[in-house]
Amino acid sequence: MISSFFRIVILSFCLWGGDIALISAQNLRSPNKVMELKFQLDTIGKPGFDFFAEGLPIVKGASLGFALAKDKDFSSGFKVDSIRQGEYKGSWNTVWGEQRQILDHHHLMMVHLSQNSQGTVRRLDIEFRLFNDGLGFRYIFPRGGNNGHFTVLEERTRLPLQQDYEAYWMPGDFDSNEYPYTRSRLSRIQALKVGEDTGLDYRYLVHDSMVQTPMLLISDQGYYMAIHEAALRHYPAMNLTVDRQQFILNTSLVPDALGNKAYLEDGDKTPWRVLLYARKAADLLTNRVILNLNEPSVLENADYIRPGKFIGVWWEMHVGKSQWQYWDRKGSGNPGDWQPVTNHGAHTANVKRHIDFAAKHGFPYVLVEGWNKGWENWYGIWKERIFSFTKPYPDFDLDDIHKHAKSKNVKLIMHHETSGAVTDYERQLDSSLALMQRYPYAGIKGGYVGRIIPRGEHHDGQWMVDHYERLAFKLSREGLTVDLHEPVRPTGLHRTYPNWWTNEAARGNEFNAWSKGNPPEHETILPFTRLLGGPMDYTPGIFQIKMNAYGKEKKEQVHTTLAKQLALYVTMYSPLQMAADLIENYEKMPEPFQFIKDVPTDWDTTLVLGAEPGDFIYMARKGRDSEDWFVGAITDEQERIFEFEPSFLLPNRKYNMFLYRDGDQAHWESDPMNYKIIKKTIRSNELIRVRLAPGGGCAIHFAPAGQKRNR
Amino acid sequence: MISSFFRIVILSFCLWGGDIALISAQNLRSPNKVMELKFQLDTIGKPGFDFFAEGLPIVKGASLGFALAKDKDFSSGFKVDSIRQGEYKGSWNTVWGEQRQILDHHHLMMVHLSQNSQGTVRRLDIEFRLFNDGLGFRYIFPRGGNNGHFTVLEERTRLPLQQDYEAYWMPGDFDSNEYPYTRSRLSRIQALKVGEDTGLDYRYLVHDSMVQTPMLLISDQGYYMAIHEAALRHYPAMNLTVDRQQFILNTSLVPDALGNKAYLEDGDKTPWRVLLYARKAADLLTNRVILNLNEPSVLENADYIRPGKFIGVWWEMHVGKSQWQYWDRKGSGNPGDWQPVTNHGAHTANVKRHIDFAAKHGFPYVLVEGWNKGWENWYGIWKERIFSFTKPYPDFDLDDIHKHAKSKNVKLIMHHETSGAVTDYERQLDSSLALMQRYPYAGIKGGYVGRIIPRGEHHDGQWMVDHYERLAFKLSREGLTVDLHEPVRPTGLHRTYPNWWTNEAARGNEFNAWSKGNPPEHETILPFTRLLGGPMDYTPGIFQIKMNAYGKEKKEQVHTTLAKQLALYVTMYSPLQMAADLIENYEKMPEPFQFIKDVPTDWDTTLVLGAEPGDFIYMARKGRDSEDWFVGAITDEQERIFEFEPSFLLPNRKYNMFLYRDGDQAHWESDPMNYKIIKKTIRSNELIRVRLAPGGGCAIHFAPAGQKRNR
Repeated sequence: MISSFFRIVILSFCLWGGDIALISAQNLRSPNKVMELKFQLDTIGKPGFDFFAEGLPIVKGASLGFALAKDKDFSSGFKVDSIRQGEYKGSWNTVWGEQRQILDHHHLMMVHLSQNSQGTVRRLDIEFRLFNDGLGFRYIFPRGGNNGHFTVLEERTRLPLQQDYEAYWMPGDFDSNEYPYTRSRLSRIQALKVGEDTGLDYRYLVHDSMVQTPMLLISDQGYYMAIHEAALRHYPAMNLTVDRQQFILNTSLVPDALGNKAYLEDGDKTPWRVLLYARKAADLLTNRVILNLNEPSVLENADYIRPGKFIGVWWEMHVGKSQWQYWDRKGSGNPGDWQPVTNHGAHTANVKRHIDFAAKHGFPYVLVEGWNKGWENWYGIWKERIFSFTKPYPDFDLDDIHKHAKSKNVKLIMHHETSGAVTDYERQLDSSLALMQRYPYAGIKGGYVGRIIPRGEHHDGQWMVDHYERLAFKLSREGLTVDLHEPVRPTGLHRTYPNWWTNEAARGNEFNAWSKGNPPEHETILPFTRLLGGPMDYTPGIFQIKMNAYGKEKKEQVHTTLAKQLALYVTMYSPLQMAADLIENYEKMPEPFQFIKDVPTDWDTTLVLGAEPGDFIYMARKGRDSEDWFVGAITDEQERIFEFEPSFLLPNRKYNMFLYRDGDQAHWESDPMNYKIIKKTIRSNELIRVRLAPGGGCAIHFAPAGQKRNR
Repeated sequence: MISSFFRIVILSFCLWGGDIALISAQNLRSPNKVMELKFQLDTIGKPGFDFFAEGLPIVKGASLGFALAKDKDFSSGFKVDSIRQGEYKGSWNTVWGEQRQILDHHHLMMVHLSQNSQGTVRRLDIEFRLFNDGLGFRYIFPRGGNNGHFTVLEERTRLPLQQDYEAYWMPGDFDSNEYPYTRSRLSRIQALKVGEDTGLDYRYLVHDSMVQTPMLLISDQGYYMAIHEAALRHYPAMNLTVDRQQFILNTSLVPDALGNKAYLEDGDKTPWRVLLYARKAADLLTNRVILNLNEPSVLENADYIRPGKFIGVWWEMHVGKSQWQYWDRKGSGNPGDWQPVTNHGAHTANVKRHIDFAAKHGFPYVLVEGWNKGWENWYGIWKERIFSFTKPYPDFDLDDIHKHAKSKNVKLIMHHETSGAVTDYERQLDSSLALMQRYPYAGIKGGYVGRIIPRGEHHDGQWMVDHYERLAFKLSREGLTVDLHEPVRPTGLHRTYPNWWTNEAARGNEFNAWSKGNPPEHETILPFTRLLGGPMDYTPGIFQIKMNAYGKEKKEQVHTTLAKQLALYVTMYSPLQMAADLIENYEKMPEPFQFIKDVPTDWDTTLVLGAEPGDFIYMARKGRDSEDWFVGAITDEQERIFEFEPSFLLPNRKYNMFLYRDGDQAHWESDPMNYKIIKKTIRSNELIRVRLAPGGGCAIHFAPAGQKRNR
């Protein structure tokens, strides 16, 4: 977290006390001068800007501001008190991540505005940061700004785009981000239609032209943009209501139970509104603007945060081999009459078996779902007092399991499914943390399946955003890590809370087990959208692709080849990565499993060898504190030839290459488990050419030759 | 809590499987046959009843049932499966209270209904208990009743009264019960008008004809009724929407943020809807129906619950002598710039002074408000993270104070003002309880000033009702007592949770310090209304009646005489009773203070010598495990002569009588602190005649002569 170099230069400082009409605008350019922002106040004192990239107009006539309670307009009638410009150049080291060091170089402009309303002067600051590859801006309600405590009815950020972009979008929803992506022109967005056709159990769709972020835009000129937010804290998530005729994006914040958007006070800041820009798609995948816009780590100690892989008592429930619940509840009868089920998954022997497997194969963590009381009656009920976060089922022997785990140097990840009853969860949190300290656990996997309690609140509203951050902070103080499922979409907060290291917050691999699943292109879109905000616990590594192995009636399947499942460990970043399949499947196929064992989850360097959203992603990464390189290549439903020279390897050195590719006849649908492993020695200037099957992929491990390896 | 005798007799059992029209009604009579209930199903299967007292029709054509989500009628289409009648006679001992033993004698009728809706048979039970002095009925959703988990949109209990009663009522409000009472005919209820004129900062009025309970009704025939509920658990509080033309009472439950009323499941029961009946007003004050309808204590141990009195660092803030807050916050500036105020009340020396005073005068408890961080910015903000419930201000030395308290055998009551941010409070509760155990504290005084968070929830809604009970239960397990201010109105739950021993939940004495205050009649109404549900922490004992003693500009005053403040210790029951005035005022007036020292807060026997709501209350009580009797007599703004023979005293015994009366010229407004103390020896057949001044009262202590007393 140490900046190795930095400097701030004041570029200009301008006081605007006089005639506003005379000084109506001020320009800001990115360090390389490629991006340009023109801030202006219009004739009625409404702040706004134009934004250009490489001379092309991206946004023209943007307007900024708020509607505050009660019926208070805070988007016009402003004057500029002063504007300050500056330059920042520095770098910082990641605790873990896709690269060790990140450069932060931007020009900034701070606009100090005031609004005189019946003698009360209220202040608003707008901060712009212009990078070579993106723009961020946010609102600041300065201390002493005379707004006191106030309620935001809506944020009035309005961004008129200048063309009908092709977009990868997901329906705007207050509670779910588990949709597949749709590609269409902005003018063709049909959020309700798409949203209702996706088989999600709980969703909260609002408007046919409302989409969520990150949204990816592809221009007719060939450049790419992504729209998202950074540092979402104490504020609701942003949806975008799209004017489909004029291509204007309007912020639509997620409301609370009463329809209010946020409760703020002077001193608060909004998240950054972010436009990422790239001439070619691949560059978006290494864009670090969102991370740079987040605050540095607040952790006093990060030593306990050890990136790594885990297995879990988890997939077996998804495929129907076992159950989360311990009791077979008969109708709605008296719990006293319940009998145990015959296939509860989280029993002591099974957990120990997983611990043994993790230890044998070098996985530091084991997740166990279904360990705690409450699963009999948890789904879709919308009530409190369902789950205990301290009481295990009778067949889950806490002491025995942890004694065994300790002897094997493995730690458990505690599962905290809230079923949305967050008030109830928070009540129990202290006692659950005490339990976790006692053994100790490594951290939690949290879950928010279902409607939120407090009733009327949403997964993506301010109250829940506060909850997630509070949880991350609280657990950071306990030396515990956090992996949340069904939270709000991430916005780079893992920089600030490196212990909150991954999230689901998108349509994960699990959908392949019990729904129509994820289309083969899905994993080629996620890194251009959802993953721009942070790592994803996608749960790759499914080897048994077809679910009919668990019952002839099952039609579901994973929509990739086995080799692509391996490649995802490289293309889909998470510092905590699951080997999601059943132990017995890995034991049946030890050769491809070797790649999962070898691939790190913490990188020194990341290179994108080629990428096009919805089509393919080819990535190379060098392990942190390692000389090994790993390549992942995935394709959508199209067969492709992946061809490259590993020029990133040291030129004067031989490497052992372990190449895991699709078999010659492999196809995600007809022959997904057909793979081939090739081992050979290779140098950096040798061409590698691999066929990716439809829905297929390829994973490669380059290890310097002559090193002793435990293989 | 031991029943000394009881019996249940099955009076009848009737299966109704056949033609409903043939068996359309069943009658139930009270044990003394004075009350009669006729249950019936009407032609469309709507359950209902008529209710008579002494042959007079009280309710005719009552209808019962619910509107359930979604749009499901659960108030008609029923058939009767069976009806069971029985008798219960038993008694139980109170842990503390107005009398040692309480008789519970009632006839009961359990009606089992079912509704066949498109082949699904849903069940509903209605239970009636008919006492000699009241009726209770409730709804039961039986286990296996096929409603599963469900949402109540409204309870459709409808009670057509048979005359335009005179009523003492308070506006229906979802968040406040701190109104003065209004007396009017039902036809003249104007809840909004009255409600908006009372100077309450936060209120949630809904409808001009909506009132809350307890409501007192006075008939033209001279009998009295009170309407309330008993055992309000996991359900919202009931308001009543009054049809002012036809005198029909309709239940209006307090909604949640979404307008839903309750989230229930099979196995849940509603609170009891209660009609108390009395031929003369005085009998209402010893009516124990509401207690009898509550469940017995769930406490494993009640030894720690020691009734007694307390003083507090409290009134001094109300009168402006000191402040709750430690910091003087300048504008909305940075807390780093704040300076301490000069008159923070809860500083170590002041608290120790209170401990010394309590010890000297035999008070077991000291309350300290303003001890904890957060008071700078707490009022009317509606945000979380205001208060800490573990962090004292810098001038409040926890260790030093508790060491001192321990040496004096005094315990502190911890103050927990939530400012309505209940989610935040619950998050901190475990750590606050741990702090309380460390010293230990005796219990808490809780506060809920302001709008509730979860936003959209109300003080009196189901979520908050759950909160209060959860708090009481949780603290019971920690050996801690609970006194809540601004909670939902009590419904006799102190039987079930004797550690939750008192509440404010009405307009307390504090209003006299900083508002137009409580009219002189106020304390003669409360025992007929609010106190029917349970004890009240009214905070009597103010000796310095006029607030101009604390600043010449202050016009406020307590609307009683000093002698009436003493009488309130007898007429206004609470097991935990405050001596609310400043130490220095008690030190200035040690003679009347002697009564506060002497009066118990736990009684063996309670007699009402005379009472008329809004006019006067005369009560005699015998201390528990004591031969001493105490009498309290209070009047409204009218002067009265209070005359009685103390026939409750042992006939062959002399008693020392200590009589604290209004001075001859005393008047609540012109000369309120004028009192006279008379000591003499008396026998049970001697007439006692006392003038009660306008707004005045009289307190008497009878102690058997010849006993050695510490006076």
